[in-house]
Amino acid sequence: MPISARNKLRGTIEEIILGNVMAHVVVRVGDNIIESAITRRSAEELKLKKGDKVTAIIKATEVMIQKD
Amino acid sequence: MPISARNKLRGTIEEIILGNVMAHVVVRVGDNIIESAITRRSAEELKLKKGDKVTAIIKATEVMIQKD
Amino acid sequence: MPISARNKLRGTIEEIILGNVMAHVVVRVGDNIIESAITRRSAEELKLKKGDKVTAIIKATEVMIQKD
Amino acid sequence: MPISARNKLRGTIEEIILGNVMAHVVVRVGDNIIESAITRRSAEELKLKKGDKVTAIIKATEVMIQKD
Amino acid sequence: MPISARNKLRGTIEEIILGNVMAHVVVRVGDNIIESAITRRSAEELKLKKGDKVTAIIKATEVMIQKD
Amino acid sequence: MPISARNKLRGTIEEIILGNVMAHVVVRVGDNIIESAITRRSAEELKLKKGDKVTAIIKATEVMIQKD
Repeated sequence: MPISARNKLRGTIEEIILGNVMAHVVVRVGDNIIESAITRRSAEELKLKKGDKVTAIIKATEVMIQKD
Repeated sequence: MPISARNKLRGTIEEIILGNVMAHVVVRVGDNIIESAITRRSAEELKLKKGDKVTAIIKATEVMIQKD
Repeated sequence: MPISARNKLRGTIEEIILGNVMAHVVVRVGDNIIESAITRRSAEELKLKKGDKVTAIIKATEVMIQKD
Repeated sequence: MPISARNKLRGTIEEIILGNVMAHVVVRVGDNIIESAITRRSAEELKLKKGDKVTAIIKATEVMIQKD
Repeated sequence: MPISARNKLRGTIEEIILGNVMAHVVVRVGDNIIESAITRRSAEELKLKKGDKVTAIIKATEVMIQKD
Repeated sequence: MPISARNKLRGTIEEIILGNVMAHVVVRVGDNIIESAITRRSAEELKLKKGDKVTAIIKATEVMIQKD
């Protein structure tokens, strides 16, 4: 079931912080770190924990470009 | 001037497609491809072109997690 | 492969408009219409066309609430 | 005062969870559930509570399409 | 009908560019310029044109902070 | 290092609320107030505090237009 979101980065969860409503998820993707803020409820339903293999998914319209 | 956006991925532009209002930018980041949809006006003002060194910037609240 | 995005609305594509960079997709979901702006490239890669069964996916942080 | 956001889904609040900064709002829209993460401050200013009639509002650029 | 989006900036349209799918809208808000990319269809349905009084609306989760 | 995000509003922080995962930042920009929800971790790393000079940054695709 392919999704239109163009960015799919496979990695491993390094850390999760749970708040009351939101959760902060840190994912290692090769040499990069990707950080995500999702609902706590999603983190719980997906049973996300350190070491899980996950894919970070990002819609192209959410990506900005900075010239170096 | 540091920015709150937590995700900053350095790479090289591989392709740009210009529409009337929007532009599609493809960036190679290590082994991954990051794709971005920005305004055509930004692409022109930044003079983005193939081979440019850029940083893709993404706010953590825009990143979803899919369990593999 | 479950995704953290909390909103998944199943429906049928009623209309697609292709621009140079973006595409406008209209999906009927029960009595509601959901409209989406994705990249043209995604619309082409998914071969989206009128009548396709699709799921509109929306991250909870993107949903606003208006009091009636 | 019409707004450019193309998606407006009318429903009824089923549940609200308040965190320190954010709030999680669950809205029944016909046969579907829509979930939203807004600031706690907005939830308080709008005095959102279970049973309220609300409209969930979503910009088209935030909607992804998954092919079933 | 109040909306949860916390940022509402009143101004006047200075320029509109219509693409096939998207539209670029430039709004003067006091001393600042706010630029928006919405669907062409919304620009047409709202009959947006130069000189119109409008409010730019932005969800708090979409605002980043850069330290000067 | 210019960024593609089209909206950059300079102002002064008036208030910060820290949650466990997220932070709510209120910025005065001339006669307007801009509010932002970022991760607590970013607020801490940038050492954001009342009185700081900051720039609120917003991607054009996140801005809606309401006709008055």
